[in-house]
Amino acid sequence: MVVYTASTTAPVNIATLKYWGKRDKDLNLPTNSSISVTLSQDDLRTLTSVATSEEFKQDKLWLNGKEESLNSERTQNCLKDLRSLRQELEQSDSSLPKISSWGLHIVSENNFPTAAGLASSAAGFSALVVAIAKLYKLPQSTSEISKIARKGSGSACRSLFGGYVAWEMGDAQDGSDSKAVEVAPLSHWSNLKAAILVVSADKKDTPSTSGMQTTVKTSDLFQWRIKEVVPKRFEEMKKSIIDKNFPVFAELTMKDSNSFHSTCLDSYPPIFYLNDTSKKIIKLVHSINEFYGETIAAYTFDAGPNAVIYYEDFNESKILSFLYQLFDKVEGWSKKFSQDELNKFSSEFNSNSSKIQFQLDDELYKGVSRIILTKVGDGPQDTNESLVGADGFPKA
Amino acid sequence: MVVYTASTTAPVNIATLKYWGKRDKDLNLPTNSSISVTLSQDDLRTLTSVATSEEFKQDKLWLNGKEESLNSERTQNCLKDLRSLRQELEQSDSSLPKISSWGLHIVSENNFPTAAGLASSAAGFSALVVAIAKLYKLPQSTSEISKIARKGSGSACRSLFGGYVAWEMGDAQDGSDSKAVEVAPLSHWSNLKAAILVVSADKKDTPSTSGMQTTVKTSDLFQWRIKEVVPKRFEEMKKSIIDKNFPVFAELTMKDSNSFHSTCLDSYPPIFYLNDTSKKIIKLVHSINEFYGETIAAYTFDAGPNAVIYYEDFNESKILSFLYQLFDKVEGWSKKFSQDELNKFSSEFNSNSSKIQFQLDDELYKGVSRIILTKVGDGPQDTNESLVGADGFPKA
Repeated sequence: MVVYTASTTAPVNIATLKYWGKRDKDLNLPTNSSISVTLSQDDLRTLTSVATSEEFKQDKLWLNGKEESLNSERTQNCLKDLRSLRQELEQSDSSLPKISSWGLHIVSENNFPTAAGLASSAAGFSALVVAIAKLYKLPQSTSEISKIARKGSGSACRSLFGGYVAWEMGDAQDGSDSKAVEVAPLSHWSNLKAAILVVSADKKDTPSTSGMQTTVKTSDLFQWRIKEVVPKRFEEMKKSIIDKNFPVFAELTMKDSNSFHSTCLDSYPPIFYLNDTSKKIIKLVHSINEFYGETIAAYTFDAGPNAVIYYEDFNESKILSFLYQLFDKVEGWSKKFSQDELNKFSSEFNSNSSKIQFQLDDELYKGVSRIILTKVGDGPQDTNESLVGADGFPKA
Repeated sequence: MVVYTASTTAPVNIATLKYWGKRDKDLNLPTNSSISVTLSQDDLRTLTSVATSEEFKQDKLWLNGKEESLNSERTQNCLKDLRSLRQELEQSDSSLPKISSWGLHIVSENNFPTAAGLASSAAGFSALVVAIAKLYKLPQSTSEISKIARKGSGSACRSLFGGYVAWEMGDAQDGSDSKAVEVAPLSHWSNLKAAILVVSADKKDTPSTSGMQTTVKTSDLFQWRIKEVVPKRFEEMKKSIIDKNFPVFAELTMKDSNSFHSTCLDSYPPIFYLNDTSKKIIKLVHSINEFYGETIAAYTFDAGPNAVIYYEDFNESKILSFLYQLFDKVEGWSKKFSQDELNKFSSEFNSNSSKIQFQLDDELYKGVSRIILTKVGDGPQDTNESLVGADGFPKA
């Protein structure tokens, strides 16, 4: 039995200019362009292996060790597009095996807890599409392939690139110009770090797809955001990345997070993703920036209460001395730092503490379950790891 | 010694179309028109007595039994305007005593805890201005006098009328057309009730004056709110009041509260007045409306976490059966209802409980310190009560 296999890893990305609102739900076409930072796969990645064989009569999917349904229309749309590109290849070169008609086995695993509420669907769909594109040896550019990932999950298209990525909304009705492009590669501004505070959610938030629909339909302020606020901010943010101007990048990032959550609150009925812990983290970041007299940290919040705090590596101890003081009880620190290094954060905090003018909430850590310390990273990577065996089924 | 005295009571008003943003800070000129409901003085009122005598060499103020400074520029502006109108009278009729040049004693008391974070400054400045206007026997219309109250505290101008009140923003630079007018008197729609849930605040919120300045200066969405959203909503809300159309009035009220808080969140740094308890009350009101299949309750939140829930009296047991179930442990119920009546709310809740599809948070009452049950009410009232004695000083 001939089994073809391919594997890839793909990263998570966290938007700094938010995607919120679809102009076409089936094609995942957005109402505005967005920008994101791709995060390092050392800390957060999906590994996906795919296998195909003439013997496989149907498509199958295993996620984190469990077989799952492949019925979702979005996944089906991705598979259809990838197969049709492969078919074109097969038609133009009859020496190629006709694998486009064979069943696909897709095996996927995250190296982080999906329960954390991190945007795992972006990494997931990105890995799925890239792995199959690789299996099918598709010649299309990364931006072209990103359009297929977009149909799976809008923000997944941005996970096709490393570094700093824009999703250009496009204006074609068929979505043919709605794709991810690189704003700057990882190497251009490689010292950006991110501390993710995983905030405990009360219960399930409004799913983002239905939340977006409510906002588009009901928020008066949303129309202004997409028409006037975002287009201007999109250009300004791209420039701040090209210029590696952290203070400008940071302010735009914080403002855009707040603007997005404002339009959620302006929806009817209103949608809330930030909770009291999130708000205290927002105030904390503003207080830290004020304390140092410059903007060295930027928060951003997706459709949930988790905070992502961006900063440049040379400011790390300035930021982490505060975060370690407040969140030393949550897990995640020892993954990156020895106890000696952590003690240095405490010393730095203590040496500053007499100058701190703002109130630190000693109980804030109770709303946070974990810290993930990571940084800007690369796009999808080839890997020798494989989740499928020679038979094309998940390894035991 | 001749002592002239006058007394009045004045009500609190709670905006249903929010005032947020000043175009002139000194004159308290707003960036948009607003609408409010005046609340009953049986439950919330300021009583102010004023006295003047040739012997009084300076102005003095006693608030809730304590002498306070009269130095605030806003109070001084009110006193100056009132004195100047009195002077005009004295100049045109030489038989009048020249009391405009005498010292004023102002004694003021609220019948509700100021700590509750209810907009007591509106009632306070309204009572102050009305009492002195009465003392001075000023012939000006209520709308004219409202302009003076506006200089004390913007929203105070709306407390000059009972029932349903609009503050027309005007466009004159000197504020001469920025005044309160009656949309409809109490008698037009007298069955509107209000349940105020006093929500415990973590700490002092951003004061509204500085909050407004931040929003005006930094929020992109705010410009759209004042130019496009509010002007349309202002006309629609006035019509809903004229029509006594509660569902429309309610939806506009809720949307406008959310819109206002959205522009706070869109400010930089962001301003938060709603906390997790406020948000749960918002969700609760939407759930109650959904449960009954019609919009019978409307929430609104000022610059703080307290919820004001409006409803019509014939729906009282429908609303209060839910509120009593959730908040029976907070104080305030027995002021309005006997235990028998309260038990009926419980029975009504229990008879519905099997049909309730949404989650009720048993611990929500922990974020609420008191309920104030009140209704739409009249404007400032003459009163025989006086807080000053024959000597023009506070009664012991």
